[in-house]
Amino acid sequence: MTEQTLGNPQVAIKEKLFAKLEAANDDMIQIRRHLHMHPELSFKEEKTARYIQDFYKELGVEVRGNVGGNGVVARIKGAHPGKTVALRADFDALPIDDQKDVEYKSTVPGVMHACGHDGHTATLLTLGKALHELRDELTGEYVLIHQHAEEYAPGGAISMVEDGCLDGVDAIFGTHLWSLNAVGTIEYRTGPVMAAADRFEIKVQGRGGHGASPHQTKDAVVIGAQLVTNLQQLVSRRVDPVESAVLSVGSFVAENAFNVIADSAYLAGTVRTFKPEIRDLMEKEIGRVVEGTAIANDCEIELDYVRGYPAVVNHEAETEFMKRIIEEELPGVEAKETAPHMGGEDFAYYLEKVPGTFFFTGAMPEDPYPHHHPRFDIDERSLLIAAKALGAAATGYQEEVSE
Amino acid sequence: MTEQTLGNPQVAIKEKLFAKLEAANDDMIQIRRHLHMHPELSFKEEKTARYIQDFYKELGVEVRGNVGGNGVVARIKGAHPGKTVALRADFDALPIDDQKDVEYKSTVPGVMHACGHDGHTATLLTLGKALHELRDELTGEYVLIHQHAEEYAPGGAISMVEDGCLDGVDAIFGTHLWSLNAVGTIEYRTGPVMAAADRFEIKVQGRGGHGASPHQTKDAVVIGAQLVTNLQQLVSRRVDPVESAVLSVGSFVAENAFNVIADSAYLAGTVRTFKPEIRDLMEKEIGRVVEGTAIANDCEIELDYVRGYPAVVNHEAETEFMKRIIEEELPGVEAKETAPHMGGEDFAYYLEKVPGTFFFTGAMPEDPYPHHHPRFDIDERSLLIAAKALGAAATGYQEEVSE
Amino acid sequence: MTEQTLGNPQVAIKEKLFAKLEAANDDMIQIRRHLHMHPELSFKEEKTARYIQDFYKELGVEVRGNVGGNGVVARIKGAHPGKTVALRADFDALPIDDQKDVEYKSTVPGVMHACGHDGHTATLLTLGKALHELRDELTGEYVLIHQHAEEYAPGGAISMVEDGCLDGVDAIFGTHLWSLNAVGTIEYRTGPVMAAADRFEIKVQGRGGHGASPHQTKDAVVIGAQLVTNLQQLVSRRVDPVESAVLSVGSFVAENAFNVIADSAYLAGTVRTFKPEIRDLMEKEIGRVVEGTAIANDCEIELDYVRGYPAVVNHEAETEFMKRIIEEELPGVEAKETAPHMGGEDFAYYLEKVPGTFFFTGAMPEDPYPHHHPRFDIDERSLLIAAKALGAAATGYQEEVSE
Amino acid sequence: MTEQTLGNPQVAIKEKLFAKLEAANDDMIQIRRHLHMHPELSFKEEKTARYIQDFYKELGVEVRGNVGGNGVVARIKGAHPGKTVALRADFDALPIDDQKDVEYKSTVPGVMHACGHDGHTATLLTLGKALHELRDELTGEYVLIHQHAEEYAPGGAISMVEDGCLDGVDAIFGTHLWSLNAVGTIEYRTGPVMAAADRFEIKVQGRGGHGASPHQTKDAVVIGAQLVTNLQQLVSRRVDPVESAVLSVGSFVAENAFNVIADSAYLAGTVRTFKPEIRDLMEKEIGRVVEGTAIANDCEIELDYVRGYPAVVNHEAETEFMKRIIEEELPGVEAKETAPHMGGEDFAYYLEKVPGTFFFTGAMPEDPYPHHHPRFDIDERSLLIAAKALGAAATGYQEEVSE
Repeated sequence: MTEQTLGNPQVAIKEKLFAKLEAANDDMIQIRRHLHMHPELSFKEEKTARYIQDFYKELGVEVRGNVGGNGVVARIKGAHPGKTVALRADFDALPIDDQKDVEYKSTVPGVMHACGHDGHTATLLTLGKALHELRDELTGEYVLIHQHAEEYAPGGAISMVEDGCLDGVDAIFGTHLWSLNAVGTIEYRTGPVMAAADRFEIKVQGRGGHGASPHQTKDAVVIGAQLVTNLQQLVSRRVDPVESAVLSVGSFVAENAFNVIADSAYLAGTVRTFKPEIRDLMEKEIGRVVEGTAIANDCEIELDYVRGYPAVVNHEAETEFMKRIIEEELPGVEAKETAPHMGGEDFAYYLEKVPGTFFFTGAMPEDPYPHHHPRFDIDERSLLIAAKALGAAATGYQEEVSE
Repeated sequence: MTEQTLGNPQVAIKEKLFAKLEAANDDMIQIRRHLHMHPELSFKEEKTARYIQDFYKELGVEVRGNVGGNGVVARIKGAHPGKTVALRADFDALPIDDQKDVEYKSTVPGVMHACGHDGHTATLLTLGKALHELRDELTGEYVLIHQHAEEYAPGGAISMVEDGCLDGVDAIFGTHLWSLNAVGTIEYRTGPVMAAADRFEIKVQGRGGHGASPHQTKDAVVIGAQLVTNLQQLVSRRVDPVESAVLSVGSFVAENAFNVIADSAYLAGTVRTFKPEIRDLMEKEIGRVVEGTAIANDCEIELDYVRGYPAVVNHEAETEFMKRIIEEELPGVEAKETAPHMGGEDFAYYLEKVPGTFFFTGAMPEDPYPHHHPRFDIDERSLLIAAKALGAAATGYQEEVSE
Repeated sequence: MTEQTLGNPQVAIKEKLFAKLEAANDDMIQIRRHLHMHPELSFKEEKTARYIQDFYKELGVEVRGNVGGNGVVARIKGAHPGKTVALRADFDALPIDDQKDVEYKSTVPGVMHACGHDGHTATLLTLGKALHELRDELTGEYVLIHQHAEEYAPGGAISMVEDGCLDGVDAIFGTHLWSLNAVGTIEYRTGPVMAAADRFEIKVQGRGGHGASPHQTKDAVVIGAQLVTNLQQLVSRRVDPVESAVLSVGSFVAENAFNVIADSAYLAGTVRTFKPEIRDLMEKEIGRVVEGTAIANDCEIELDYVRGYPAVVNHEAETEFMKRIIEEELPGVEAKETAPHMGGEDFAYYLEKVPGTFFFTGAMPEDPYPHHHPRFDIDERSLLIAAKALGAAATGYQEEVSE
Repeated sequence: MTEQTLGNPQVAIKEKLFAKLEAANDDMIQIRRHLHMHPELSFKEEKTARYIQDFYKELGVEVRGNVGGNGVVARIKGAHPGKTVALRADFDALPIDDQKDVEYKSTVPGVMHACGHDGHTATLLTLGKALHELRDELTGEYVLIHQHAEEYAPGGAISMVEDGCLDGVDAIFGTHLWSLNAVGTIEYRTGPVMAAADRFEIKVQGRGGHGASPHQTKDAVVIGAQLVTNLQQLVSRRVDPVESAVLSVGSFVAENAFNVIADSAYLAGTVRTFKPEIRDLMEKEIGRVVEGTAIANDCEIELDYVRGYPAVVNHEAETEFMKRIIEEELPGVEAKETAPHMGGEDFAYYLEKVPGTFFFTGAMPEDPYPHHHPRFDIDERSLLIAAKALGAAATGYQEEVSE
């Protein structure tokens, strides 16, 4: 074993890399907490982008900002020629009010890192620093993609790809910290692993009036409630039960004086599917429900259905490679196959261009809440695991492809 | 006829009063438009209160501000001893966004005189000025009650009454400009004429989460929609069809990112009834629906039911008097009996203390919208009719009671 | 007073009549119980019609069967010329399964006198016998209308009228035993007293299939449930709250194996209104809901809306007369004004032809159930009160009109 | 190849068997049509059981009736010792009214072979006859299980197993003709292939009354509609979208006069799941919805949840064997992996006892309808394919296990 290690420069690198990551763990957690306290909404994450650029600039790493928007891309060239491997972390936050009781709680009312992107960013920055410090011993080139706007379609990935962030890239790896998976697990899956994620908005235009005179109005709240109820029946009645689909109405807004009947109501929601034909079906059936409800209530209802990210489809070779990396290079970490996730991810766009895989790093805290919950948090021990997994994959991929 | 008129000082006064009102019509309309452009929400109508006080102070009329809040009361004493008659106009506006296309459109986003209180105030100010100018010929005393906060329980009337605005008052009259009644009509009714108006608020506490993972959440939007739908069945199933009741949910607010499942939803609405036992029934049944819905969805739902104004019950003698005034003193104006209105009015509190009546002055514009609609407006010719009706009633009441 | 009575043959008649009715009370109750045990559905009440005819034939009373269907009309001519007064009792039963525990319980499964028509018939037969026995002392003529098919539109009244049952009639009286009014009360009302009663049937044509494969079907049960829910909102949202309307879906039938998805569902219900414009509105809005629901669910839904009886509108003079009769001639019975009933009655057709009034005789038993309930029953002491009221009205009307 | 065939008695048998089946094809279709015209409901299929027994008795095949109820088991012993292989066909029909326009349409109103069990039975009888005729050349023993009552839990399989139908059996095969799969395809799957199928019944006990007086009632139709609607939300909101579950309400029965408000409503439905934890969840959540709805409506609702068949879990070795049989022995027939079916099957019980597999034989007619549809039919060419597949499997299994 010892001799093998000696004879394998990537293994030696991995050990040095891991040592650096372990040493930087406290800093990594501080970065994460700093970001957590200063979240920014999708497409508005200027300060975070600046923070990332400054981090790399101070280190002397080559970095480019404004990549396809607020995106930031750093590049680290190893001393030895090799493959170009991209790693990606997203850095936008959500319009959710932080309701946790922690000292690193969001300082921005109504905005929160409720999905772990702060952790992704801290992980990639710290890994980038370690790779930079080891650049004289490294084989290949490392493209660190800090992506803005993952949470809101059309997302940042597509424009960053268009702006060249994958130029010359041979493979890409990305991970999501996952608050509902135990720390010490990494979940992988070949093929479709995250759903196509569409957005819809519905504007009910009733006829407002006095709360005491319903007969002179068309009550947009009652009509909106009919829509919510009937839309729920699409998944339970129209979709083949052995297929997967989700329809959630996230927003229902008709804000009025209590004694006014709503003139209009605004609904917004998401549809998740894996198969194109189910996606088409859902879009068509939503249109049907909207049309019928408008007729039944003699009112106008506008539907805007916006297709979001396609499904994330992991490549088989890179996924198998990743699984092996976890099993062989990350002692104490368990590799598990995951069921497909209904969440969407614009990591899908990278995988349409280059081979790669997207995996889930367990980050469950003591009192876990689901992603996007106002009390969402992660166990910060997961950061080091994620950093090691990405680092081992990136550096190990050199060896892999040279075989 | 001539001799009668000569021998009746009140008739002579009425003619002078009407002449003054006609002469002041353009000013009255300008006052109304000024108020329309500067609406203020209930309990926040400081500027309007100041405007009213300034108006009277400039005329030299005795005026008291801060009556029971933002209320304003002016008093005009006639030269001859007589009865004390109160007239009331309310002056608060609504949290509705003005969507009319007129030059006197509201300048305050989200706030609008969508119920005609601007017109009520202009009418009473103009009538007050005319009475003041005729004070040397007047019999009796006139109490001009400019009431704040009619739109929001507990309302301004109750505190103004507590603050003494009815002290010494023998009778009270009030009118509502009505956008759905033709100009040239005045509607009256003895007994219950406006409903008891209660407010309820419902807070659904679900469990938020990612829009793609409904099974980890309790979807507050879906639960709220169930509530809206099931509450509608109380009127249709639980209330005796020959009785009247209204339940309207005016607000449904669950504002989230489209891909977040709502953690909570806020509903607010109103209940209108004429009979105490129906009022009790509605409150009890709302509680039942809320309790059952919480159990069915394994979540918390909080209900706050706040009783608002009691029913407005017009006194028979004053209503008959008012009807006669319209028929005899207002040529060209038609008196009609109205069906009871489901709207609430804190004029109810005045009528619990002193005799009087509340009537509806037709104000339908060419393109009429119901009260509280974002495009609500009135035909301004109604102002003069309302001013004459109140003026004729107030001055005529002197004669009436001396018979 | 004594002299008046002596000098007034009708008063003397009344006393004899009442004495006869009291003596016949046990027989009357037996007749009622016999009918109760042998109920027949609307338009199928051949045996009951035969029973009624036989009763009169045995007495030697002139009787005509098959009047406009199963109707029966008996005529009793008094010795003295006078007015012709009609009295009406209906005799059909309902498709309800008798769930009472009494010895006179229905012997016909699924058919029940759940509305009191058995009592009406017993009352009129007994009164007819008494009038017949007194015929030599009577003034005027008495037309005893035993009407079939009151419960099912188009009803028996319209065809009995067409078949001449009102020929020569000067006035008509009818009563309904009422299980929710106390024994010893009679309720009257001038003007609209019972509602226009329409029937609708809805056939949802979905697409049946296996319960495990909803996506291959159009689930008629789910679609039917949407209809029921949305139809309930018509009364609460579309009808002016100070007007009255009822919409009830009485039947929802989709009978299948538990693991089959319903191919079709059948709904049937009733709409009650007093005003023609509300009636039109309800019919139109039901059509709208049906159309929109069909579109939303991509299925066929057939609606058949059948207008039933118009509103029962009591005549003022006869109602005032009836009230006086109760107050003066029926000691111990309290006359009360009733609120309008939402139930329909084809007594409406008689009142469109001749003056008259329809009143409610209190019949509340110890454990009262509403009309049409499977445990409905009456207090049989009400029969005598009803018989006296009708008898006093019929004989008293002679005097009335001669004044 | 030729030599192999010569040296392999089973292959020779297969060719003779196929020739006999082809020759018997017309008879097989006639048997199917006869059964189609005379369907019998689950647990009441006495005549069909007699028909099956008579068929075997006439041939001189050993047959036992009344196995675990109406079940029939025939046994054919080959001349050479070998494995005992069971084949199973079910023979009950459904409470569905046949709406096809064919000459072999059901002659029993309201009862129909709407699932293809007539075809299963015809196939197995015909195969049994052929095996019987070849018995002198056969290896092993063949147990022909004609099972009653597949459509209605607890089903016939469990009691037939208890009554010994699997005694000595080494493996079992069964097929379902499938109207939505093309003729010429056979679908197989290892592991869970059909769902756990539970039944629930709900009795809403409201309070009946007159359709015009809803306030005196508790409207069981409206309450039932709430249940249907809210139950639909369990699958869409409570079940993990990557898992499968179905909830269908097949029956909604509240049959009343149109003008009666329903006293009670009866609902019955099915729940399908693959995983025990989802099954538990659905049962618990249905209870919650029922409890909450009863509270919201102040009525009694009874829930009876009856667990039905467990999931059908195919054994891997037998499924792989079956796939090979199709690919190698059935030229022109395509083997495809199927997605799991949500339908339930009590074939599950056989597979809990002995190894085996259950597969789907394509039977799509020109105008296909789903199983359990009133217009369901099959393409009868599928019978021969099913007979060959079962025959090849049964005889081939001898060879298989001797390897």
